[in-house]
Amino acid sequence: MKEAIVLFGHGSREAQWARPFQQLAASLSRKTDATIRLAYLELMSPSLTDAIATLANEGVTAIRVVPVFLGVGGHTRHDLPKLVEAARARHGTVQITLDAPIGEQASVIEAIAAAIASKS
Amino acid sequence: MKEAIVLFGHGSREAQWARPFQQLAASLSRKTDATIRLAYLELMSPSLTDAIATLANEGVTAIRVVPVFLGVGGHTRHDLPKLVEAARARHGTVQITLDAPIGEQASVIEAIAAAIASKS
Repeated sequence: MKEAIVLFGHGSREAQWARPFQQLAASLSRKTDATIRLAYLELMSPSLTDAIATLANEGVTAIRVVPVFLGVGGHTRHDLPKLVEAARARHGTVQITLDAPIGEQASVIEAIAAAIASKS
Repeated sequence: MKEAIVLFGHGSREAQWARPFQQLAASLSRKTDATIRLAYLELMSPSLTDAIATLANEGVTAIRVVPVFLGVGGHTRHDLPKLVEAARARHGTVQITLDAPIGEQASVIEAIAAAIASKS
């Protein structure tokens, strides 16, 4: 099985907005053998749809989508499941899973709190 | 010196959006003796201005503002420094410092990457 992780962020008009996401992708690449890609909801490319199509074309058979959102709102609760559903319909042979947004993952919240506390 | 940390997030129309920020505040409260407060740029209250005024009224003499933003854009680069500057002018006896956004802190990025990789 050829696996990929897609880090899905909001996107912005300002190129440097994405720098933390690029650094997250680089860090994650050192920790896993999966192919790591970035994708954005709006204002930046590629879209999630395009990122998944590219991975499917490359022969990836399992894609895990990780919403890199702290706050949990309409984007992650409504928009994103629809995008994933559409991608599943389009790429029937690819297993596409959707993680909880990172803001809902206790280990992430603890890690951020620890990073803030360590500077006190 | 009576210290406080203000966790500053974007805000949203949806109340549950703030849940990860509330959990971050709770987690941080367990790790430090500083008073922990939340504040928002828009759509939620209190504003940063109000949160700082309340803390100043409570006799807090040092306030550290932590931008809980992953992407680094106009909000953190332009809006936030202006808000902090105005608060400093208004509360001359309170020391107000501004952290780098958490998305620019390497330890936070590493922790998020580790949390994602651990589920692979």
